[in-house]
Amino acid sequence: MIRRLLPSALVIAFTGAAPSISGPATSSDRVPGGADRGMPRFRADGALLRPDGVERWVLVGTSLGLGYSNATDDGVGMFHRVYLEPGAYEHFLRTGGFRDGTMLALSIRKPVNRVPPSRAGWSEGELAALELAVKDPERFQGGWAYFDFGRDARSARVLPRERCARCHAEHAARDNVFMQFYPQLRAR
Amino acid sequence: MIRRLLPSALVIAFTGAAPSISGPATSSDRVPGGADRGMPRFRADGALLRPDGVERWVLVGTSLGLGYSNATDDGVGMFHRVYLEPGAYEHFLRTGGFRDGTMLALSIRKPVNRVPPSRAGWSEGELAALELAVKDPERFQGGWAYFDFGRDARSARVLPRERCARCHAEHAARDNVFMQFYPQLRAR
Repeated sequence: MIRRLLPSALVIAFTGAAPSISGPATSSDRVPGGADRGMPRFRADGALLRPDGVERWVLVGTSLGLGYSNATDDGVGMFHRVYLEPGAYEHFLRTGGFRDGTMLALSIRKPVNRVPPSRAGWSEGELAALELAVKDPERFQGGWAYFDFGRDARSARVLPRERCARCHAEHAARDNVFMQFYPQLRAR
Repeated sequence: MIRRLLPSALVIAFTGAAPSISGPATSSDRVPGGADRGMPRFRADGALLRPDGVERWVLVGTSLGLGYSNATDDGVGMFHRVYLEPGAYEHFLRTGGFRDGTMLALSIRKPVNRVPPSRAGWSEGELAALELAVKDPERFQGGWAYFDFGRDARSARVLPRERCARCHAEHAARDNVFMQFYPQLRAR
């Protein structure tokens, strides 16, 4: 019943442009709760550290089974939650734009059904993967880069452009962000 | 394509026990941001005021088309987001229980499909209704009461027991809360 996680289902949720590290990356393992709270943290080798507390960020959109191509089986696909880091959310509400350092997180869960007492519909199973989009024009060509932490990796490297960035650049409604799927953002 | 919002689809998400106001209600229009921040606010006549900023609360679960009876048409039902007020969320993480004053919010949205560039799956349309569950054993028989703000009502009265409370009392996994649908709560 559950469609396997297709690359196309991932690609639709995020993208920037050429997400290659544009120069020597610098260490920025900063103090949690300090001035850099809410900002992405990178290792010296350029890998992004998995942020803590994503489940407390602001949910901007949910979807089930989003994909690019017509479904070819009867599966329902995966549940997506897309979160915006709270500081970036407040910035967006004030300005309508995404500040440098903006992080969006995509959590991916398998759907489950017939969890008692439900007899119809779908709710969320356990976490399958966490992906991140980061805006940092000084670090990434095109401004944004994308990262896949899987279920529990503590750090992740930039994904190749074909995985996310191209589609976001071509199809996202504003600044590489798929506003069209996020009700409380598209209302602004 | 879109199944109409059935009472059964609502009932599944919330419920307490007999949600009648047990005595003369008192006014508690408290100062936002003060000591009562994160607590429900009632008018003198017992109506609950719609809380601000629910979209910043902690999402605990998403579902599509959850219902009690077998689906009778090919509609997919409604998207549900269930939020827990942040103070109550932190209390839950510490104790595994729901403090007095806990608020859970259910936002209901129609699903939309084929929003470009998607060609499969469902994302969220505009808000159809906001419902609230409030734990207040001094105020409500059975401990919990349920409220329906529709799309934009500023206050709401307690719903009759048949609407939500009975099913929550009978089927919710813990203290009238449908933990079984909320991944990051059921993990605790």
